[in-house]
Amino acid sequence: MTRTPILISLTSLLLAALPAAAQNGDPPRGFLRGQWEEQRSIEEQFRAVPDPARLREYMEYMSGEPHIGGFGHGSRRVAEYALEKFLSFGLDAAIEETEALMPLPTDRHVEVLGPEPYTLRLAELGVPEDRDSSDPGQLPTFNPYAAGGDVSGEVVFVNYGIPEDYEMLAALGISVEGKIVLARYGRSWRGIKAKLAQENGAIGALMYSDPEEDGYYRGLTYPEGPYRPKWGVQRGSILDMPVHPGDPLTPGWGATEDREKLTRETARTLVRIPVLPISWGDALPILEQIRGAVAPNDDWKGALPITYHIGPGPVRVRMRTAYDWQVRPIYNVVARIEGSHYPDEWIVHGNHHDAWCNGATDPISGAVQLMETARGFGELLKAGIRPRRTVIFALWDAEEWGLLGSTEWAETHREDLGEKGVIYINTDSTGKGWLSMAGSHTLQKFLNEVARGIEDPERGVSVFEAARARRLETAANPDARREIEQSDDLRLAALGSGSDYTVFIDHLTMASLNLGFGGDSPGGVYHSNYDSFHWYNRFSDSEFVFGRALSQLVGTAMLRLANAAILPFGFTDLADAMRDYVAEIRETHAAMESPEEIDFAAIENALEALDEAGQGYEDALARLDDASVDAILQSPEASRLNQLLYTSERRLGYEEGLPEREWFRHQVYAPGFYTGYGVKTIPGVREGIEEEEWEAARFYVRVVSEALSALTDQVREAERILADLR
Amino acid sequence: MTRTPILISLTSLLLAALPAAAQNGDPPRGFLRGQWEEQRSIEEQFRAVPDPARLREYMEYMSGEPHIGGFGHGSRRVAEYALEKFLSFGLDAAIEETEALMPLPTDRHVEVLGPEPYTLRLAELGVPEDRDSSDPGQLPTFNPYAAGGDVSGEVVFVNYGIPEDYEMLAALGISVEGKIVLARYGRSWRGIKAKLAQENGAIGALMYSDPEEDGYYRGLTYPEGPYRPKWGVQRGSILDMPVHPGDPLTPGWGATEDREKLTRETARTLVRIPVLPISWGDALPILEQIRGAVAPNDDWKGALPITYHIGPGPVRVRMRTAYDWQVRPIYNVVARIEGSHYPDEWIVHGNHHDAWCNGATDPISGAVQLMETARGFGELLKAGIRPRRTVIFALWDAEEWGLLGSTEWAETHREDLGEKGVIYINTDSTGKGWLSMAGSHTLQKFLNEVARGIEDPERGVSVFEAARARRLETAANPDARREIEQSDDLRLAALGSGSDYTVFIDHLTMASLNLGFGGDSPGGVYHSNYDSFHWYNRFSDSEFVFGRALSQLVGTAMLRLANAAILPFGFTDLADAMRDYVAEIRETHAAMESPEEIDFAAIENALEALDEAGQGYEDALARLDDASVDAILQSPEASRLNQLLYTSERRLGYEEGLPEREWFRHQVYAPGFYTGYGVKTIPGVREGIEEEEWEAARFYVRVVSEALSALTDQVREAERILADLR
Repeated sequence: MTRTPILISLTSLLLAALPAAAQNGDPPRGFLRGQWEEQRSIEEQFRAVPDPARLREYMEYMSGEPHIGGFGHGSRRVAEYALEKFLSFGLDAAIEETEALMPLPTDRHVEVLGPEPYTLRLAELGVPEDRDSSDPGQLPTFNPYAAGGDVSGEVVFVNYGIPEDYEMLAALGISVEGKIVLARYGRSWRGIKAKLAQENGAIGALMYSDPEEDGYYRGLTYPEGPYRPKWGVQRGSILDMPVHPGDPLTPGWGATEDREKLTRETARTLVRIPVLPISWGDALPILEQIRGAVAPNDDWKGALPITYHIGPGPVRVRMRTAYDWQVRPIYNVVARIEGSHYPDEWIVHGNHHDAWCNGATDPISGAVQLMETARGFGELLKAGIRPRRTVIFALWDAEEWGLLGSTEWAETHREDLGEKGVIYINTDSTGKGWLSMAGSHTLQKFLNEVARGIEDPERGVSVFEAARARRLETAANPDARREIEQSDDLRLAALGSGSDYTVFIDHLTMASLNLGFGGDSPGGVYHSNYDSFHWYNRFSDSEFVFGRALSQLVGTAMLRLANAAILPFGFTDLADAMRDYVAEIRETHAAMESPEEIDFAAIENALEALDEAGQGYEDALARLDDASVDAILQSPEASRLNQLLYTSERRLGYEEGLPEREWFRHQVYAPGFYTGYGVKTIPGVREGIEEEEWEAARFYVRVVSEALSALTDQVREAERILADLR
Repeated sequence: MTRTPILISLTSLLLAALPAAAQNGDPPRGFLRGQWEEQRSIEEQFRAVPDPARLREYMEYMSGEPHIGGFGHGSRRVAEYALEKFLSFGLDAAIEETEALMPLPTDRHVEVLGPEPYTLRLAELGVPEDRDSSDPGQLPTFNPYAAGGDVSGEVVFVNYGIPEDYEMLAALGISVEGKIVLARYGRSWRGIKAKLAQENGAIGALMYSDPEEDGYYRGLTYPEGPYRPKWGVQRGSILDMPVHPGDPLTPGWGATEDREKLTRETARTLVRIPVLPISWGDALPILEQIRGAVAPNDDWKGALPITYHIGPGPVRVRMRTAYDWQVRPIYNVVARIEGSHYPDEWIVHGNHHDAWCNGATDPISGAVQLMETARGFGELLKAGIRPRRTVIFALWDAEEWGLLGSTEWAETHREDLGEKGVIYINTDSTGKGWLSMAGSHTLQKFLNEVARGIEDPERGVSVFEAARARRLETAANPDARREIEQSDDLRLAALGSGSDYTVFIDHLTMASLNLGFGGDSPGGVYHSNYDSFHWYNRFSDSEFVFGRALSQLVGTAMLRLANAAILPFGFTDLADAMRDYVAEIRETHAAMESPEEIDFAAIENALEALDEAGQGYEDALARLDDASVDAILQSPEASRLNQLLYTSERRLGYEEGLPEREWFRHQVYAPGFYTGYGVKTIPGVREGIEEEEWEAARFYVRVVSEALSALTDQVREAERILADLR
């Protein structure tokens, strides 16, 4: 709070540092000269609104009690608070209820049967200085969607439990068939560890946080420092989200629709073995009793004070778990501002509100940003300023369980979103550090431009410049550094999964962005009862100035998207990024030295055509006559043009989806089938090659090429309309 | 023992696998055709002698009690046992006594003053199954030649305490001035850690064995496994041996010569601050109380269950130490067989007999090999077979303190060795695994040839083939692998320091070799009370078959050197290796981007000339007429030729030595001033460049060039005599 005056005075400094175009009044992408002065004033009014004191106030309330989707009244309490706030900001808002299968644990018992018996604690330890850490309303530690059961067996330590670890086990002649695996968290999304344990014949799985990745090896532990303490547990869903997120019983449609649900037996995303997350305090008595093969290399060793062994056994463990398998209510909070000119073009921004515990960082740090951004729009409304396009703010429930709230809402509204959805902007946990930008490459130029106009709260430069400096500093190699130096813009990271953008980009193929600050807020409380207001105030964005910057960034982007005469999409960056993805896949294929040939020419030719069309579109955009503002804003051609632009991402979808997961339609971005959250770009082709499914790989070469050609046609049509507009 | 029959049957298999030259009866390097049949028979008789049962018997006795040089009667007891054995083998033998300054601790006390007080144990813990591990005759844990004192101060963790660590501390703005440093063992010889602590202003130093390098992180600990347990301590000297080894008071001359000794004040190799070695059990209460800077990267983190911090403080430690600073007796055991034809050409083989505790591995595993090799020569004597050259076997005392026994003996006999010393062959700790060969490159062809004729006890191939396969398997990169594949011979490693060859090669510039087996015997008992017969029998060469192979190898090499008509030196390998060393130094210099130019042309030209002369010598050798055997063996020209050959290594010496350490005369090999045991090849030039002492670097370019030219002249003269011999 004490730093606010300094930051305000930075604004003037920052304006001096803006790129020449912005300084001399050239309008940003999508705006006509005659439109820009008014828009700039609107944006400035907006950016003055977000207030660190309010961010803190919202967080203190919302993280004041546990608020788990589906459990107790915590999630409803937060939803009602947010609703009240939205209404008080002057927005039209409501709780839109849906539901999903959300099993709560009714029994959890794990014991080491011997040689040295030990009963696992399966609970975190409160910290006296942080009363939230021992809130009696907390749900026990578990991994939702694991099976109930009662199994006993020898233990095998499978390291991270990812595909390469099972390859090593095979090379060592060690099977997990009929065993209980013990995996450490890290290197992949947890659901993959459960899936692989099951696929390899394990009868149960335990996952723990090794201090090498998440604990004292990284730094001092809570409460002395920010890292995970001995009894800290990472909860988290193991729903097989790479098949589809959302309610396991209603894939592709809204859970409250009048349509027969799948059963637990026919559902494809439930895990069939017992799985539980544990702390290293509980893992140590098991690990120190494993013998058999010694860790084959240092990569198989964590930071616990033992000699890491693989086993199997001689230590034996019993796991007993049970769940209630209830369908539970989900409370999405949705606020809406009807657009003054294009009510049927929707700008959607979302962040979840549910947490595993009190969730100050995850997700409240992002949710309070959304609320302040909504307040900013409310303040503009009070000043008579309404966005030209419709703006929707959504606080999703039950994200933690498997993106339930957002997925069910979007599936319910799939027709409307398919027609009207311009963009989905997501935020989630945020902290202090550097802006991370991910999403559709068609928005790369646009987003970079917005980021150039937002001040970094600590560094006296724009958040764009700060992020660029950080990327240069942390570049993996000289080539990567050179590429950053030689590019005007920072490339957006491709979206995998792990937050609520998934249904929008992957299923509905709406252009999407995911934004947040991080990299300077040490992590060690992820999905634990230490993710509290007290922790956030000591170790993260304690002045809430990065939260304000994020609100300024998201709000500015939304205002531009809402008011632009011509939606700020572009296509050359997509062609550019995809060329690199194809080159990566080519390299992977070459390294396999397989006799199976894959002909990438169709994609490469299609990318060349797209690049050309994209360049033609840019040229037409540059030739737009300033004089025609009013004509353009009111012409039906412009409306058709904008529709072509915002539905451009739809062309990258394929109705039949990816192999064995038809829900995932996007042909450029998808979470990997065996990486979980980690993205696989051009997934049909890439995973086909990686899995040596050659026919599938060739098939998706055609699918991608055709999608790109359809997109190219659409861009050419947009260029023609644009040329006629002058 | 049960494996012996199998091993004997392997001999026939192995002979089939020998290179064509040996199979069809072509004599090895140095032998004339008419001479070889007899020599082969002698070698075969010799190789049948070494007996695993006797190796075990000697070890059991010699490691049965602690036998520290200068302490109690343990070292005298072992010396007398060895003497008796040598005499019983029929050799002429005696204990040759010398002396040196050998301070024993009279007080050792270390305590953590706070925040949490703790008094360090400073002692190892016995293991019930191994009575030697708690022998009451053991000396307390200490680092000889540290200063006595009583100091208190805050602690700074300096990681490995090597130059790059102090660079990091400087970058972080952390000084050790007036502090007590805590360093972990590893990455360098311990004496360097003490020297750097002192040079950087520390008032005391503690060194501990982190389980990452030496303990549970590597494998199960003793007695369950072979690795160092919680309370294991690595003792060891911190005499500044890179300045000179041997008695600190008599550098360059024998300690018992009638010459005034230096005083403790004028001695140059004593450490001026208190230093002690500790276990991780004692280090942990200190490390876990250090705060201040966190370890800046993973390289600064060990395997203890803490967050590694650098400090300084707040933890404060008091160290109180005192020593008695006595001059103590040293018992070298020397056995000798006068040569029948060339009594003034000496083949010297040595291994130390003193240990820090019971020392089954270090040094008894090597010492018993020497004793069986001596017995083999005794058996030949009894059969009327006497070597043509004089053979000397030496069991050195007080190696552990600072190579005291060998250095004082060689300094005492420096005139004789300068004239008569043909070669020094060293062994020390040995185990199971693969042959490691290090030493003068002029003996590379010779030693490879010997190794091709010794069977590996486990792998059904020669020890040469096994070593080659191992080097290929562990090659650091494809280039290194290609180089091995494309070479007929394995390159000898260059000698640094760390065992008794040092005075012979570095000070007297006698050609030297260092031989042993290892790589498959896990280490965790180095310089601890767990280095026992019990440990060796469980975890190392428990069948003593690698010990036998080493004896066969060393004995065969000695017999060849003793009887060769023409000593088997060669010069092209030296030129070859030195070209690579120069290339490395060039690269180092180039990477420094210094404006200071160094002209390597003089050395490179000299190497070209040496290579040419060496090739000429090889050609002359190949042209030697078989008919002239008797003439050659009796000709004074052959005697002159051999003298030129064995004194060739002398040409690589420079009387004034290296900068600030004139004792080190060899210009191709030296232990690094700041690496300790680690070799610095062409040290005058290399260290001059590394330390940016440009004038010194240029000066040593001249010294090395001139040495090489003198050697080249000598090789040419040898070639002329050889040509005339036909």
